[in-house]
Amino acid sequence: MAVQKPSIPKGTRDFSQREMARRNYIFDTIRSVFRLYGFAPIETPAMENLSTLMGKYGEEGDKLLFKILNSGNYLLGVDSEILHDDNINRLTTKISEKGLRYDLTVPFARFVVQHRNELQFPFKRYQMQPVWRADRPQKGRYREFYQCDADVIGSDSLVSEVELLQLIDEVFARFGINIAIKLNNRKVLAGIAEIIGEPERLVDITVAIDKIDKIGIDAVNEELSSKGLAQEAIAALRPILEISGTVDERLEALRKLLASSETGTRGVDELNEVIAMTRDLGLRAQLDLDVSLARGLNYYTGCIIEVKALDVTIGSITGGGRYDNLTGVFGMPGVSGVGISFGADRIYDVLNALDLYPEEATMTTRVMFANFGALEALASLRLMKRLRAQGISTELYPDAVKMKKQLSFASAAGIPFVAMIGDSELADGTVTLKDMIAGEQHTLSHDALIEKLKA
Amino acid sequence: MAVQKPSIPKGTRDFSQREMARRNYIFDTIRSVFRLYGFAPIETPAMENLSTLMGKYGEEGDKLLFKILNSGNYLLGVDSEILHDDNINRLTTKISEKGLRYDLTVPFARFVVQHRNELQFPFKRYQMQPVWRADRPQKGRYREFYQCDADVIGSDSLVSEVELLQLIDEVFARFGINIAIKLNNRKVLAGIAEIIGEPERLVDITVAIDKIDKIGIDAVNEELSSKGLAQEAIAALRPILEISGTVDERLEALRKLLASSETGTRGVDELNEVIAMTRDLGLRAQLDLDVSLARGLNYYTGCIIEVKALDVTIGSITGGGRYDNLTGVFGMPGVSGVGISFGADRIYDVLNALDLYPEEATMTTRVMFANFGALEALASLRLMKRLRAQGISTELYPDAVKMKKQLSFASAAGIPFVAMIGDSELADGTVTLKDMIAGEQHTLSHDALIEKLKA
Repeated sequence: MAVQKPSIPKGTRDFSQREMARRNYIFDTIRSVFRLYGFAPIETPAMENLSTLMGKYGEEGDKLLFKILNSGNYLLGVDSEILHDDNINRLTTKISEKGLRYDLTVPFARFVVQHRNELQFPFKRYQMQPVWRADRPQKGRYREFYQCDADVIGSDSLVSEVELLQLIDEVFARFGINIAIKLNNRKVLAGIAEIIGEPERLVDITVAIDKIDKIGIDAVNEELSSKGLAQEAIAALRPILEISGTVDERLEALRKLLASSETGTRGVDELNEVIAMTRDLGLRAQLDLDVSLARGLNYYTGCIIEVKALDVTIGSITGGGRYDNLTGVFGMPGVSGVGISFGADRIYDVLNALDLYPEEATMTTRVMFANFGALEALASLRLMKRLRAQGISTELYPDAVKMKKQLSFASAAGIPFVAMIGDSELADGTVTLKDMIAGEQHTLSHDALIEKLKA
Repeated sequence: MAVQKPSIPKGTRDFSQREMARRNYIFDTIRSVFRLYGFAPIETPAMENLSTLMGKYGEEGDKLLFKILNSGNYLLGVDSEILHDDNINRLTTKISEKGLRYDLTVPFARFVVQHRNELQFPFKRYQMQPVWRADRPQKGRYREFYQCDADVIGSDSLVSEVELLQLIDEVFARFGINIAIKLNNRKVLAGIAEIIGEPERLVDITVAIDKIDKIGIDAVNEELSSKGLAQEAIAALRPILEISGTVDERLEALRKLLASSETGTRGVDELNEVIAMTRDLGLRAQLDLDVSLARGLNYYTGCIIEVKALDVTIGSITGGGRYDNLTGVFGMPGVSGVGISFGADRIYDVLNALDLYPEEATMTTRVMFANFGALEALASLRLMKRLRAQGISTELYPDAVKMKKQLSFASAAGIPFVAMIGDSELADGTVTLKDMIAGEQHTLSHDALIEKLKA
């Protein structure tokens, strides 16, 4: 066989021990908090039927799905006409029936409907799995990445929003990342479209004002104008976007401006209730109101949540919101839910930038035993068995090579202690322990070694 | 959009909370022991380039790879001639460049070569990720399943075999599964082929005798005969396959029978050394010698390991062995390694059959707070915050519906305690705790509740 230069598909990554330790710290932290809040884990297959995935993420999303070629002779029975059609999509549906998961939300909706008779509602689930998108890879954007989602489905109680905000607060407190949580409500956005006289243009309006942080109010107004929004409407929008003051002052101003809209007023009430309860319970994070927040996702129907890191410039690191009809397309209409999604890759970047990993997130072997030959190795293995029984991770250097080589291996691997049983230790039943950081070494009894490493 | 009846691709599975709890117990147990033995975690992408995967698993394996359709207009530039070729493989290579991981071994070999300059050798890694095979689904065989592998690469010391046997022993001791570990050595098999005068027929011989447990010695002999093996060779093979007695007696008999083969003798020496060391260290599991063991994998060059559950009839639940040239195809020849792979799905079946899951493997919320309305809910959330700070997982029923409904939810979800803050508890700052298993309930102070649930 010819020799191949090994590589991996662009936009994908290998994770080394060091990266895995850090990623596991992130996943373990989020998972612990999910459990603390009573969310139950589920997992779904990497492959879903394309009929489940197609049409759920817009036209652009359909193109970004990784599609799996049918097994066997996939062209069997495919018309020559389809083979030569200018529209390749017809052929694709014939030769591919499955695709890779694009997010965790659609598979979750499919799961809920498929297993509705086995589930207890309200159903609180978390899910932490990779997703795949055939996006153009760029810095911080990958073709395979993890999502960490928690959702409550089957209740429209605002208590769920409050618990999710507490959960977000707890996760980032554990990470030591200072955050601001921005809140909005789709009903407020609908109210705004209504009172400026453009209720039908809700999507155009939210898409445009969602960009206000990036491009400023004038560019937003230009975009709205180019989309054919009336100048009076654009003029009426400006004071709403320019509301200022404390959260309470802004909520109050918004309430007055949206007084004539029933939907808008309901949105303000919901925001008010969520903010009041959350405050009562005490949040470490800054809680902010942002009427421009839409998160581009048209399936949100109530509360919209976005989290930003305060000390690093990076996009949102967590987001979510309430939706009312996620399961409708699978035949289960009118089920309300609310969910959040932690962006593990961006959290990884923030923790790296701020160097916030705890020592446990290095996860190396605690002690390596050096190898001086067959007899010494066996004596080492006997003692290592006792260490492992105490939960102390240990490994034996497999070959009796030069000590310098063995020590530099341990040093490069970041192993903090090297234990040595050579001739003299074998004779008097001791072990010499070298502290790789302090550089000093001591000869100890086996019991003393165990006591020292347990600490 | 039309309503869709939701389903998942055949051979794949959704995992519910209950199944996840059990699977996580399995993965966590194996992971802890991997770490205790100094193995470092890595992960590789789900997708590999097809050039990495093709040709590594035999012709049958190539067919079982899930191939991913190229993005965009994948037919662009594909010759019409190729489109109409009887051999579909030519088209496949044009329209698909990536495939899903088929096992963890080939990606690991690719990883080692690609990152050779960043790694410390000997390199001990573990990897626990799903793999995908377009196999015909059947009971116990899935198209997506997890592998849990540990390998030591870059050393030919038999100490690694010994440590892997200890590791296997520890994992199954933690599970409470009684096992037998069967050992063989490829050099013994080569020695057998040599002394029966058919050194070139090693593969045919090992493939046939590997089936002896299933089909018996006569059927094996028939198969060898049909493959054209000389009758004298088949006759010479019989006494070797019929060796009986204790492990030591059989090793001794084997040594005599293979005395004229240098390779065979080396195999016996290796088995002897591994068994002696392992015995000295004390294994809970039965250690057995099985000269018919080949595991069908032609890349093994030394020790071959297979684990069977003693109390359940099921195939092997763990296997592995030593290989000498896994990385050669990627341009890094002559690197010896030894590895094992735990079959998580079969272990799951064994634990289910023997009902061996510990209580922790249920992983429900510890206490659900009932919901009596807005004020009571807020008081509950305040107390819940204190519980969570103590690591007690808790959730609030989101809606103030009938108590009967809330209690039956908790009961169906297997939540052991329900806490209630209603009118009277709100008035006197107490909480009523219902033990869902014992059926009794008591009114407590908030502090007393925390103390009780911490226990």
